[in-house]
Amino acid sequence: MKFTLLKTDKECKARRGRLETDHGTIETPIFMPVGTAGTVKGVLQRDVKTEVKAEIILGNTYHLYLRPGLDVLEKAGGLHKFMAWDMPILTDSGGFQVFSLAHNRKLNTNGCEFRSHIDGSKHLFTPENVVDIQRKIGADIIMAFDECPPGTADFAYAAKSLDITQQWLERGLKHFDSTDPKYGYSQTFFPIVQGCVYPDLRRKAAEGAAKFYREGYAIGGLSVGEPEEVMYEMIEVVEPILPSDRPRYLMGVGTPANILEAIARGVDMFDCVMPTRNGRNGMLFTREGIINIKNLRWKDDFSPIDPDGTNYVDTTFSKAYLRHLFVANEMLGPQLASIHNLSFYLWLVNEARLKIEEGTFLSWKNMMIKKLTTRL
Amino acid sequence: MKFTLLKTDKECKARRGRLETDHGTIETPIFMPVGTAGTVKGVLQRDVKTEVKAEIILGNTYHLYLRPGLDVLEKAGGLHKFMAWDMPILTDSGGFQVFSLAHNRKLNTNGCEFRSHIDGSKHLFTPENVVDIQRKIGADIIMAFDECPPGTADFAYAAKSLDITQQWLERGLKHFDSTDPKYGYSQTFFPIVQGCVYPDLRRKAAEGAAKFYREGYAIGGLSVGEPEEVMYEMIEVVEPILPSDRPRYLMGVGTPANILEAIARGVDMFDCVMPTRNGRNGMLFTREGIINIKNLRWKDDFSPIDPDGTNYVDTTFSKAYLRHLFVANEMLGPQLASIHNLSFYLWLVNEARLKIEEGTFLSWKNMMIKKLTTRL
Ligand SMILES: [Zn+2]
Ligand SMILES: [Zn+2]
Repeated sequence: MKFTLLKTDKECKARRGRLETDHGTIETPIFMPVGTAGTVKGVLQRDVKTEVKAEIILGNTYHLYLRPGLDVLEKAGGLHKFMAWDMPILTDSGGFQVFSLAHNRKLNTNGCEFRSHIDGSKHLFTPENVVDIQRKIGADIIMAFDECPPGTADFAYAAKSLDITQQWLERGLKHFDSTDPKYGYSQTFFPIVQGCVYPDLRRKAAEGAAKFYREGYAIGGLSVGEPEEVMYEMIEVVEPILPSDRPRYLMGVGTPANILEAIARGVDMFDCVMPTRNGRNGMLFTREGIINIKNLRWKDDFSPIDPDGTNYVDTTFSKAYLRHLFVANEMLGPQLASIHNLSFYLWLVNEARLKIEEGTFLSWKNMMIKKLTTRL
Repeated sequence: MKFTLLKTDKECKARRGRLETDHGTIETPIFMPVGTAGTVKGVLQRDVKTEVKAEIILGNTYHLYLRPGLDVLEKAGGLHKFMAWDMPILTDSGGFQVFSLAHNRKLNTNGCEFRSHIDGSKHLFTPENVVDIQRKIGADIIMAFDECPPGTADFAYAAKSLDITQQWLERGLKHFDSTDPKYGYSQTFFPIVQGCVYPDLRRKAAEGAAKFYREGYAIGGLSVGEPEEVMYEMIEVVEPILPSDRPRYLMGVGTPANILEAIARGVDMFDCVMPTRNGRNGMLFTREGIINIKNLRWKDDFSPIDPDGTNYVDTTFSKAYLRHLFVANEMLGPQLASIHNLSFYLWLVNEARLKIEEGTFLSWKNMMIKKLTTRL
């Protein structure tokens, strides 16, 4: 993998970059649609590519490990072939899901034992086997196994948790560097910077990770309930410590406004379930603001879902039609809203790239934030 | 509307025809995907056209009348514009749903009062206003309002019901012929032949309808629980009575085998929820037989869903992947299965057309029936 920093904004930390992988090139800043269990929920792969215009998607290690399972994925020749997606894939480490979804967790310094939330079967994740699992899944970008403390953790807990995450990082790295990719294309490994809402811990985490000078870095444990300002502060704390010639990926974030604020603070990569999850509930993100398409006010609004949209859905179907689909509980409603929202997120990061190139990012960002948070 | 009978088979009653409407030409025999409430469930309109290769879809008057309602449909300029579908649409009369879904039905000779199954609101369908409703929906092909007796009705009940349906037919026809289309394209009216499982009543119904010599005829009240052989017998009873230069539409039928058997008995048009409903439950129809994609045997079968399929879905995704989507309860599973099944139904009628043209329909049909009913 190769990252090229093409430009850094003069007025803020925003960066324009390019990430090259064996499955294709990713222009940054980028948003990665979440494909939890080998599918971006409700959207055909062809549409993820041609309508959403995604350049990379994310898979969840915990979910894929449980279903379809590594035996199936290996026999298929990896996740790309299994799900018929030939562009880059990043997998998370499973840490977040183990600590939020799995049952009967037993955490020790070796790793984390847990029971599947699906069938109660017993499993063990360690910093080493989580690398092996992601190698077998066939991710282009692999994440370190991290302990994810709850957003409400006190300093002592968070400090202890960070110690574990840092030990695990060393073990994961060592294991990654002594093993080979499985399917003939290269894989890369990103450390994750944790540290909860404590600047000292975030600094320690960033320094501990930066010293390995890996091909990219993730910032985890944010957007888990803390105020937005605290999230932005944590990014500001770690940003100067992370190598500037390496991409930074802010995990699980967030609203369109969150993404622009984080880009302004030097973040290059994002993922979030919000465009699909909120879309399935009838919430549409647009450049003029947020639409609850179920509202009565759209009942006979026959204007396109998004007249400025660049995909088939936005300009073909009306707000009134999309509202009708939601009111009548028709599957097509969530499908169309998911395509719209994902396409909007990809439009937003593409627009951010253009504004960074032009040198007008900061004023554009400030103007957009006001619109993006308006309820229409 | 214009129907041209291009060829009649020498060995059976199968017919090859062409139906011209203001929204385009339909080659018969044809299968019409069901778009209950202005959407073919789970399938984008573009995919109904380009992947499924539908030539006409069906809308349900009862559902569309309740949601989105006639005010919205009229303001939109009709259902075609509302749902962004520019090819032909046929609507049923609402009779079947009123007698199966609606609450507090009060039937009299004037029509049928009922309460919405959605919100309990009170409504009245008459032979006249059901024509007005379908004119407002903007259907290319409009159905007569009929009383649908239960499949278990005795002769006396069925005879009385047919009397009502025949009175309603005269009233509906009169009203249709004295009113105009609303949106600048022509609309046509099909009588429905009822009569339950009683040959004498079916004959009476067919004669009563045939005498009006309309542009097409529907055969209703079949595939409602009676044995398949009885259904075929009822078709055989009415077929010689219906004008041979008019298309015959067998409502709500059926399995792929049912469709081929009905084509052999002179039917030209079909609709059924089976390809989408069964698809949503993981049942796939293929030219080799029926697949329950949830079965363990497909777990690591990486062959395409349908290697002979002519759509994006069939050849892009594997059986193992589709099985995984169903096992993991992912929306994409029902979406892909619906596209596959609909596309298969359209392939089947297209193939039937080719075989009729070649003069090899009957032997092909007999060979296919065996395969179509095999469980793989
Ligand atoms: Zn998120
Ligand atoms: Zn049916």
